[in-house]
Parts: sequence; structure tokens; C-alpha cells
Amino acid sequence: MRILTGDRPTGPLHLGHYVGSLQNRINLSEGTEQFIIIANLQALTTHWKNFSLVEKNIFEVVCDYLAIGVDTNQTTIFVQSTIPQLAELTIFFMNLVTVNRLKRNPTVKNEMKGYGFEEHIPVGFFTYPISQAADILLFHPTHIPVGNDQLPMIEQTNEIAASFNHCYQKNIFSPVEAVLSLTQRLPGIDGKEKMSKSKGNAIMLSDSFDTIKKKVHLMYTDPDHISIDKPGRVEGNVVFTFLDIFHKNKDEIEELKKNYRNGGLGDSTIKKILVDDIENFIAPIREKRIHFSNSPDLINKIIKNGNERAYAIAEKNIKEIKKIMHLL
Amino acid sequence: MRILTGDRPTGPLHLGHYVGSLQNRINLSEGTEQFIIIANLQALTTHWKNFSLVEKNIFEVVCDYLAIGVDTNQTTIFVQSTIPQLAELTIFFMNLVTVNRLKRNPTVKNEMKGYGFEEHIPVGFFTYPISQAADILLFHPTHIPVGNDQLPMIEQTNEIAASFNHCYQKNIFSPVEAVLSLTQRLPGIDGKEKMSKSKGNAIMLSDSFDTIKKKVHLMYTDPDHISIDKPGRVEGNVVFTFLDIFHKNKDEIEELKKNYRNGGLGDSTIKKILVDDIENFIAPIREKRIHFSNSPDLINKIIKNGNERAYAIAEKNIKEIKKIMHLL
Repeated sequence: MRILTGDRPTGPLHLGHYVGSLQNRINLSEGTEQFIIIANLQALTTHWKNFSLVEKNIFEVVCDYLAIGVDTNQTTIFVQSTIPQLAELTIFFMNLVTVNRLKRNPTVKNEMKGYGFEEHIPVGFFTYPISQAADILLFHPTHIPVGNDQLPMIEQTNEIAASFNHCYQKNIFSPVEAVLSLTQRLPGIDGKEKMSKSKGNAIMLSDSFDTIKKKVHLMYTDPDHISIDKPGRVEGNVVFTFLDIFHKNKDEIEELKKNYRNGGLGDSTIKKILVDDIENFIAPIREKRIHFSNSPDLINKIIKNGNERAYAIAEKNIKEIKKIMHLL
Repeated sequence: MRILTGDRPTGPLHLGHYVGSLQNRINLSEGTEQFIIIANLQALTTHWKNFSLVEKNIFEVVCDYLAIGVDTNQTTIFVQSTIPQLAELTIFFMNLVTVNRLKRNPTVKNEMKGYGFEEHIPVGFFTYPISQAADILLFHPTHIPVGNDQLPMIEQTNEIAASFNHCYQKNIFSPVEAVLSLTQRLPGIDGKEKMSKSKGNAIMLSDSFDTIKKKVHLMYTDPDHISIDKPGRVEGNVVFTFLDIFHKNKDEIEELKKNYRNGGLGDSTIKKILVDDIENFIAPIREKRIHFSNSPDLINKIIKNGNERAYAIAEKNIKEIKKIMHLL
């Protein structure tokens, strides 16, 4: 088992990242080799003008990884732009995918709307599934922890792997397996489908207790639940979605849900419980995070070591790939 | 003045290459630094399955260069796939070009038809103007010898240079200037617009005297010129197009044209003259070419040296570019 995952360094990580992928990385990490790619070039496909922000957030994201417990003995954390072999492999793969196939990628279609590109889609964004396939396949991983919105990307990656093997008559790339997150996708505090920093509806792993309180206070519940003694809805109520994930005692949650449905339980009560749950979860992460973000030399060394480790593997693997392609 | 040109190694070079670009490279070379990129990755955007052919023709193309007199002291001949910095720069540029802009590139539109891609355009082919812009701009050349069918590529290259400078607020890339070929584009022996190996209408720089004779014999003249004593047409008559370029005595050509137009001059006579002209032109090239193609160690050394020289410059330049982009 060899795991590869990654994040775009467009901001510090949030609870949505944790539930969607980070949690799985930690759970799967015992005894397995793991790669985390900080996809700064992929970040530029949407943030090409915000290059300073992307640069800054490489540091932030690494602090997040270490704070949640990523073990750098087993995990190679590296920065995409330091591995030119990824760009090379992307170029090689581009001959094996048609323009029409890219147009049909549901993840890209959906994100295209989100970024408001309409008719002015940058080529870098349009082709990022190919570049992501290169990010994955260059390191020959077996498993990729993802949210289910990313399944079309895994499908496209495996398609490219098969096309390459077929074109060059060599079984060099094996299909990768998606490892779906244990829990459903975390909604934003506004009840929107996906927690996302750019939508301003995220609780960051670095948020202070006060910020957590404020954000939970703003959380979307049941808009029709106007007085405490009236019945409230649990389905689509973001507070309960979060409690399902972060409250340890499942029996207590069932009891709370029953009372809420029957009437007599106010939003402020369940929000108070949730604030404590999230604080209990985040407090140790935040503490470690402060330690790491005050240790820039340590962080930079971890990044440098990771880049070197990844580069050595990338160089070995690209040589094999180029040999198969009869390339100098 | 710094010159950059290149060829796709899909076959040995022919007279069309000579007239379109090679001649200019030789004429411009005195005292100027020159780069010739053997675009094997660009060749794969149409020949991805013929990777062995592409590999083989790197050697052939270098033999052609040396045979026509390229001076390796002033000229760096290098192979695209050995310079990963080109792939990196391509990826950087992809954020600065929209999908719609690529669709409007007239050269790509025209070539797309030629290759019969229709709806199944490989992404590599669709995006090759970006990759070609990277090939050019990474080496900061000032002049690019091209045929006029390539002018839209130069325009797109300069557009990308300006976009990059604007996005990253730094005048790193200067616009490049196209140097058009001295003579009109050489038609194929079948009278088709462009001489091209894939269309089988080319006279190669390595052709034997017998092959030249055979090809000139097949050459398109005036299909209505059935008997010698009847008037013949000179316009669109490929033999005269070639004579205009390869026959040294211009007065003699005017005399021949007059006689042909008046009637009394047969195709076999003008073809005989052309065979001699082409043979006179190709014979010394062919002789040198045989010498070089029998010296694989020399050729491989020239390629290796060129790759190393180009790599050193590419590495220096990509570092500057990455610094401007705030990339590790």
C-alpha cells in the first residue's frame, strides 16, 4: 500500500479537509508509505495572479499537516513545483487524452462554474485533470484518499494509465484505488454543499476558540424553528451534521435529536455542545500548530527533505517512463 | 541577435525545409548565437504511436544539419525531451492562455484538418502553440526564421510573453521577430501547396541522383501542354518554380520561360535542366551527409554537448522565471 494525496495551498486547511481526506491519511498511515503533494502549480491554475498567497500558504499547509499528526518519517511532504518530472509526465500524457474527453470531466465542469470562467477557461485549468493524473501516477501509489466529488478525477487517472500502457505496450502504470472518506462530506456553516475557504463558510484547523464560537453561532439550523418549544428539523440542520461527526457519545446525539424534533430544545443549547466538541477536537491541533508555525526553520527543513526525497523517486521513475517512450 | 529554430524529427529533411528555414539559418548564422531544437515531444503530439520513428529521426535530422553546413561552434543543437524546464514553462504558460484563444489559432486549425483529427483532437496537439512558445521564450532569442504559415505561432508566442510580463509585473520576456524565408514556399513535386514528407511529395536532402531524376520526372508541369510545339503554362508549373530557386543563371530561365510559353520547348528538356540544378545543389550535401551518418559517435557527441549546453542555459533561465513567480 502506497498512499498519495495532496492539497492546493490556497489557504490554511479546515474541518472539511480533515473529514474529507486528512483523517483518512492519518488512519491509513500506520506502516504505509505516504506522499503528500502540495499542489502549488495546480493552485496557480485558478490563482495565477495570487502567486504570493500560494507561496505563503505552502508553509501554512505544512503546519496543518504536522499539527494533525502527519508523521514525516513515513510521509514525504513535497512541493509540486520542485519536481519538474511532473511537468514532463503531464506533457507526455497530453497526447493520450482528447479535448472532448476533458470537456466531459464532471469535476472540471462543476468547478468551472464555481470559478465563473464561462467562455474564458484558462488552458491550465481545463487540462488540470491530466496534470493531476501525472501527480498521482509518477509515484506509483496504490490508494488515493478522496472525497466522492473527486471520483471522476480518479477515473480519468486510471483511463490515462491504461492508455499509456496500451500505447507503449508495457504495463508500467497500475490503476489506483480511491479510498472514500469515512463520513459524508462536511457542509459549510452556511449549509452550502461544500465547506470551502473561498466561500467563507469554513472552520479552519487554526481557528481560535472565539472564532469557533462565532462561526458555530452563525451556523445554519432549521430556519422554520422560530421558538424553542416548537418542533425543529434535524435533516439539513448543519449543527446536527457536525454533531454526528464530532460528538463522541452517539446515544447522547440520538437523545438530542429526539428532543429537538419534539420541541423544547433550542439552537443555542445544541450549538453550545457543538462549540465544546469542536474546541475539544481543534484545541490540541491548534496548540501544536502554534508550536510549528513558530518554528520556520523546522518547517523549511521538512519541506526541503521532502522535496529531495520526492525528486529522487521522480527522477528514477521518469527515466523508466522515458525509456519506454524511446525518449532521450 | 540570438536565433532559435527547430524541426520535428518525423523524417529526414527535404528541400522544402531548406528553402523555408534552413537556408536562413545558415545565412543568419555568421557571428550570431544560434539554437536548434529537435522537437521530439512536439513530434509525439501527432506521432505518439510512432515513437521509434521519432527516436530514429533525431539522428537523421542532425546529419542533415551538419551536411548543410550548420556550425556547431555557434549553434547549439539539442533535443527537446532532455530539457524538462521546457515542460515546466509550458505548464506555467497554460494559465495565461484561454481554451478559446487556442481554438482560434489559424496554424493549428489548418494542421488539425491535415491530420484528420476532427472531433478527436489530442490535448497535446491542441496545446502545442503554448509548448512552442515555451520552446522559444525559455532561451530568450531575438529572431526566429520561419515560413509564413508559422506567423500565427510567433504572434501567439509574443502574446504569451506579454501576458506573462503583465501578470508577474516584470519585463522578463521580449517579443521575438519572425525572419521570413527569402523565397516563396516550395510546393511539393505534385504541385500541392506545401512540400511534406508525409504527403510523399518531397525531395529529401539525402536523395540519390537516381531518386532525384525519378522525382523530377514525376513533377507536375502544365497538364494541358500535350505536345511540345504547343504553348505551355509557366505559372503553377512546379518545374519552373524550382528553376526560379535553384537555377543560378536568371537570364537563362527567362529565355526558357519565353520558349515554353511560345511553344517548342518540351517538359523533358526543362526537367533535365532541373535535375542537374538539384543534383548540383544536393551532391555536396549528400556527400557530407554520408560521412556524418557513418560517424554515429560524432553525431551522438554533438547531440550530448548540445543538450548539456542547452540544459545549463535552461536551468539558469527557469530559476529566474520561478523566482519571479514566487515558486520554489
